[in-house]
Amino acid sequence: MGDLKALISIDGESSTEDDPIVIQKEAGPTSKAVQDFGLHQSETPSTSARGATLSRNNHLLDVDQPLIMGNDSVPPNIPINGSAGSSNRNIDNSEPIFHLRSRTAAASTPNYESLDYEVCENTLFQDEQRKRLTERFSLRKDIIRWIIFIQIGIITALIACTIDIIIEELSKRKYTFLYNSVKENVPLSDASDRDLLIPYLYWLLFSIVPVAFGAAMVTYIEPITAGSGIPQVKSYLNGVKIPRIVRIKTLAVKAIGVITSVVGGLAGGKEGPMIHAGAVVAAGISQGKSTTFVKDFRIFKAFRDDHEKRDFVLGGGAAGVSAAFGAPIGGMLFSLEEAASFWNQNLIWRTLVASIISVFTLNIVLSAYHGLNDFTFTGLFNLGKFDTPLKFDYFELPIFMILGVTGGLLGAAWNSLNTKINKFRKRFIPWKIGKVLEAIVVAMMGVTLACLMIYFINDCRPLGNDPTNNPVQLFCEDNEYNAVAALWFQTPEATVRSLFHDPPGSHKILTLALFTVVYYVLSCATFGLNVSLGVFIPTALVGAAWGRLLAMLTYYVFPQAEFLHPGKYALIGAAANLGGVLRMTISLSVILMETTGVETSFFFPLIIALISAKWVGDYFNEGIYDTQIQVNHVPMLTWEPLPQYKGLKARDILSKPVVCIKLHDSANYIYQMLKKCDHNGFPVVDDVRGDRRSEGRVCGIILRSQLIVILLKSLYVENKRFWLPETSIQTFRDVYPRYPSIKSVRKLDDKINYTVDLSMFMNPSPIRVNPHDSVPRIFQIFRALGLRHLLVINNENRIAGIITRRDFIYK
Amino acid sequence: MGDLKALISIDGESSTEDDPIVIQKEAGPTSKAVQDFGLHQSETPSTSARGATLSRNNHLLDVDQPLIMGNDSVPPNIPINGSAGSSNRNIDNSEPIFHLRSRTAAASTPNYESLDYEVCENTLFQDEQRKRLTERFSLRKDIIRWIIFIQIGIITALIACTIDIIIEELSKRKYTFLYNSVKENVPLSDASDRDLLIPYLYWLLFSIVPVAFGAAMVTYIEPITAGSGIPQVKSYLNGVKIPRIVRIKTLAVKAIGVITSVVGGLAGGKEGPMIHAGAVVAAGISQGKSTTFVKDFRIFKAFRDDHEKRDFVLGGGAAGVSAAFGAPIGGMLFSLEEAASFWNQNLIWRTLVASIISVFTLNIVLSAYHGLNDFTFTGLFNLGKFDTPLKFDYFELPIFMILGVTGGLLGAAWNSLNTKINKFRKRFIPWKIGKVLEAIVVAMMGVTLACLMIYFINDCRPLGNDPTNNPVQLFCEDNEYNAVAALWFQTPEATVRSLFHDPPGSHKILTLALFTVVYYVLSCATFGLNVSLGVFIPTALVGAAWGRLLAMLTYYVFPQAEFLHPGKYALIGAAANLGGVLRMTISLSVILMETTGVETSFFFPLIIALISAKWVGDYFNEGIYDTQIQVNHVPMLTWEPLPQYKGLKARDILSKPVVCIKLHDSANYIYQMLKKCDHNGFPVVDDVRGDRRSEGRVCGIILRSQLIVILLKSLYVENKRFWLPETSIQTFRDVYPRYPSIKSVRKLDDKINYTVDLSMFMNPSPIRVNPHDSVPRIFQIFRALGLRHLLVINNENRIAGIITRRDFIYK
Repeated sequence: MGDLKALISIDGESSTEDDPIVIQKEAGPTSKAVQDFGLHQSETPSTSARGATLSRNNHLLDVDQPLIMGNDSVPPNIPINGSAGSSNRNIDNSEPIFHLRSRTAAASTPNYESLDYEVCENTLFQDEQRKRLTERFSLRKDIIRWIIFIQIGIITALIACTIDIIIEELSKRKYTFLYNSVKENVPLSDASDRDLLIPYLYWLLFSIVPVAFGAAMVTYIEPITAGSGIPQVKSYLNGVKIPRIVRIKTLAVKAIGVITSVVGGLAGGKEGPMIHAGAVVAAGISQGKSTTFVKDFRIFKAFRDDHEKRDFVLGGGAAGVSAAFGAPIGGMLFSLEEAASFWNQNLIWRTLVASIISVFTLNIVLSAYHGLNDFTFTGLFNLGKFDTPLKFDYFELPIFMILGVTGGLLGAAWNSLNTKINKFRKRFIPWKIGKVLEAIVVAMMGVTLACLMIYFINDCRPLGNDPTNNPVQLFCEDNEYNAVAALWFQTPEATVRSLFHDPPGSHKILTLALFTVVYYVLSCATFGLNVSLGVFIPTALVGAAWGRLLAMLTYYVFPQAEFLHPGKYALIGAAANLGGVLRMTISLSVILMETTGVETSFFFPLIIALISAKWVGDYFNEGIYDTQIQVNHVPMLTWEPLPQYKGLKARDILSKPVVCIKLHDSANYIYQMLKKCDHNGFPVVDDVRGDRRSEGRVCGIILRSQLIVILLKSLYVENKRFWLPETSIQTFRDVYPRYPSIKSVRKLDDKINYTVDLSMFMNPSPIRVNPHDSVPRIFQIFRALGLRHLLVINNENRIAGIITRRDFIYK
Repeated sequence: MGDLKALISIDGESSTEDDPIVIQKEAGPTSKAVQDFGLHQSETPSTSARGATLSRNNHLLDVDQPLIMGNDSVPPNIPINGSAGSSNRNIDNSEPIFHLRSRTAAASTPNYESLDYEVCENTLFQDEQRKRLTERFSLRKDIIRWIIFIQIGIITALIACTIDIIIEELSKRKYTFLYNSVKENVPLSDASDRDLLIPYLYWLLFSIVPVAFGAAMVTYIEPITAGSGIPQVKSYLNGVKIPRIVRIKTLAVKAIGVITSVVGGLAGGKEGPMIHAGAVVAAGISQGKSTTFVKDFRIFKAFRDDHEKRDFVLGGGAAGVSAAFGAPIGGMLFSLEEAASFWNQNLIWRTLVASIISVFTLNIVLSAYHGLNDFTFTGLFNLGKFDTPLKFDYFELPIFMILGVTGGLLGAAWNSLNTKINKFRKRFIPWKIGKVLEAIVVAMMGVTLACLMIYFINDCRPLGNDPTNNPVQLFCEDNEYNAVAALWFQTPEATVRSLFHDPPGSHKILTLALFTVVYYVLSCATFGLNVSLGVFIPTALVGAAWGRLLAMLTYYVFPQAEFLHPGKYALIGAAANLGGVLRMTISLSVILMETTGVETSFFFPLIIALISAKWVGDYFNEGIYDTQIQVNHVPMLTWEPLPQYKGLKARDILSKPVVCIKLHDSANYIYQMLKKCDHNGFPVVDDVRGDRRSEGRVCGIILRSQLIVILLKSLYVENKRFWLPETSIQTFRDVYPRYPSIKSVRKLDDKINYTVDLSMFMNPSPIRVNPHDSVPRIFQIFRALGLRHLLVINNENRIAGIITRRDFIYK
């Protein structure tokens, strides 16, 4: 181990030896070694006790770090620290460190980076602030911010409308065609000659073609658009950089993907994708430029950083929810519940306005589309308005609670099943074409099951109060329609509406029971396919179906129980199932209330069902969005520190040793170091004796992206007179958000002896904690301030370690 | 100045001299000097430029600090630092400091202290955490928390119901009596013999008696109950300790006060006081003890700190709003908008549940009271439900905007006028009896103006569609009622309902115009009286009156404009006026929506009116609650740092020198220091050479209250064996929230040479910043983490100053 220590000595520690420089390895092997190292650790985890020393893996380190230390102008042996981008740590074993298994497991996962939600208040930033210290500028910035939020509301709504209308039109055509096909091919009233083959084949065709198209687009053009998009937006707002999540291409693929999937008849809804669309719109508009179209409108330059962008994305998400559900308050609360960690009055206020503008725009467009000339387009209650106020009795409250518990159990089972299916998928269907085929198979399965149900269940109801647009007669008497076909021959959203509002006795018990089971399985198989689809509507649909079913069953047993309004129970069932699957209690209750127009007094039953469902579900697993985030190993910060971290101290989770940079450091050192390690934040130190960087006193922190810009633009002390006058914060903003990599920096050659003065670029106010601070406390600081790096310093203000997002993730 | 420096040397600086101890002055003169010093500063403010040195006041310091420094066991010369309790600073002038006028102005104001929202994670706390690290305890604590929130909802609603029902019953009796009196005394249909004297006198009697009673209670028993209570609750949640704000006595006085005032007919509502009531209930229940009744139920001990209590008070406030308006979402949002600074999903979720429980309880009780046996008591829409959905046309949007602007202007004028009246009051009516008399005069003024209106305006409307309970005939033909009397012969809340829902043509234009003017003036004169009253209802009333008036006027000019539904315009007017006076946009819009049952599509007009009103109003002054807070010099933290602070650094606002304590310090030093200065937080330092405390390295912070407990309980190193086994975090919690003062500590005598080891008591993780950190940034940290003290340290981890709440307040 003594040997090892010499090899991995902290930078500069052996610089006094003044040996010749031998660079034997490039950055590549380093990161490979890193990964191996991480994997090795996970084989021999040492989680048994706090303070246990980690078993080292010498030969890997030999591969990794054979450098012999040089003098100042030379890259010394760079130790590996644990900033967000990397995942290797604890190489120095000068003091015992409690090693959590978390980090080793995380090491083998994709490398998500963090967003810089912390504003870097360096000298350049302050210069800009000072220039703009006039009241007028601040007012102008405020007004522009408002204008952007209003634009976000309008454009999100327009996109939502477009998706909405296209889906509606295409679905209408599809189902009308099928309806006619059934009419032509099935001999009426002739129960003996049941033949659905031709309609079935048509139906298959109309499902497979759009689904295949959508799945292919998602798979081949932009895989990030698969699924609802809510987990991704959530992660983004939490501070994790999900590549390509807010690009215009993503938006386009997502929009087409959701249209094709819904029209194709997959068990999914358009709500999730609409929220994602809102987020993309917000990110796009607020930046005033598009990297996809290489177009810079030269506006909104002041908003080009992660911090500002996040606020806009929050508003965009809210506008998306509002447009999807016609629920402005629900939209705002959704954004808050799922996303925001810091409550800022002005931000929320702007978010609400974006939501309201979005609903208003939607209202105008849809009113025009439906040929109305006032604003009372009731379609905004897109799950249908309960016209008569829903009433309930005291004794029903326990029933609602039972429904909630049922929802929690079913939801937890759904989540677990879905996760298993997705794991299976990931393992056995790695090929792109397989993913497309899989989507087609699921679509076919849906159509086949629906056809079988229609074929075998004889559920005929008298025409007249039929709620469906295409009452299919199909094996029924004249003046009757087929209730099973009515359930299947429309979009899932329309079916939810039917289940809420159809008069009592619209379906057979058997119909609903089978429908529930089929849809439960179908939706479970669908979510996770490589198509753009949300999970809200199918979840609500399953819940509404079994809620209505339970009411019917109970009524069948106790025919005198007149309180059993099936629509009411469908609503409660939907709430319970949503609570069980999604676990977003606050916004869900408000969305359901706004989207069905129930009165305040019915809020209580909804909450009872939701809360029971959430609690029961939480006992078994997490909500589906959080599960997805976990499965993808996204390092998302929870609301509270994990229970495993209680009682731990900063020194137990910090990563060290840390690569430091001197306040005035050599360009070559920085260049070599950036090539060698992939960390994203480097403490800046001064008061350094020689090259013992990690023993200097911390005076700031600098990001990798900033260093690269410095190297790219040659912002050195020696050629100061060339760049100093025209360098401003804008120099750094110009390359946002796609920072170049270190590979794009040419070799330094003639500038190899130049120095960099970081004092004007670094963030001089990094948050620092002590090694003995408790983890729950530093977690609170980390989350509340939206940090990316947290420096741990000792009593003398020297670096003791660094804590990043990844150190708080345990799995 | 050199002389001065010697005198006010940092503690221990001259300790090497080893002079005899001469304590010449007690703490008293210190604080007097402090105040004088502050006042002196305000006479010669040096706000001209950053970096300006402060002019010193030598003779005051001479009075203040003539101590000759002693050795370790002796209190050295204690410099004055600027922790929350005190307000004097910048005595050491070793480097130039930019002096803001704020601090000097604040010096002459009452000394509000801060609450400890920061959890002190000392060794004792961690010991407790470790003991309870079992999953089970954390679950139990969580369940108890939920139970408390549910209790808060129920009890708040019960109190609100009680207030509600008593007001309703008493008002009904009062107005029925007056109605009969009018009937008996005014000869019908005899317009020549108009005699209202006897009813007038009765009316005066029924106003003066309750108002006098209420005003006397408020004035003599608990003056803190005056006004709505919202500013106080808001300050409390912001972290300012308002004495006696959450006591049971306060609740009782407030309840009686609001009943008497509303029954007495003052222009005010019960909503504000109900919110305050909710806060008191929450603070009371969550602590499991009552200091007023000297009763400790020995439950909920884990919740006895400011941090936990705040969360409950937040829930209580929300429950209060919900009960007052029947608006659960509005209640939650109100709490968030006005109060919370850190968004925590679980907290909000509990707050929403408390709100819903509160509304549900209210619903049950009021349904029972009104003899209904289902849950559809529509009285929950306590401003009346709009049964037909309100519609609007595109071209009305500018009209709504104009209404909003009008509301903003009228609201700003109202705020300014009210502030002037209150300043006048403060100056010219200092006596208690005068305050009671003033309330009586305003009550009499109200009755008189109402009577004059009734007497002189002849506004008779046919009976039949009359919306009032007591249709007074009064000078009208048979089958007619007097519309003016109808406006006045009910509680203000009922009048708002009338203005929203009365059919078109229920009033003359003259009636409404005069009513608006009279009520505007009356409400302005009322708010600020020494009675318990809220400002919501009178504001809504004035707004509704002029909204309706404008609609009627426009209709009079353009009789073809059929869109001019007077109720709709009354609602928009009310929203505009509320926006103009209160400026709470988010919660107001939701409350108005929930409380009148308008549909989502009408949200947009409401927001247009509110937003215009808020922006116009904000141009002139702040909302009435914030104005009140400012007038009372409460050091409340705004959402964003004040614009004046932009561009400043920590070193420009910090207070220094700072009184430090050594990690192992002498009991006598602590005792003498506490007697001498009234600061609330002391940095703990180690690595101290001799007595140069302020040159040690910062290792923690300790609160005054903790030090007093240490002295009271004799927790010294020398007698460790007696107290160590039984001392826990509970020792400190037992005295919460009314910490004893240093005067209750006996002289040390035999323990004079004992030492205190602070390592287990201090907070080892204080947040620290650098002197060059920007103020907006440290403001963000301070606010997001709810800090009380922020230590400014230099590069070597030595104290450079301290920043408290007061340093962020500029006036």
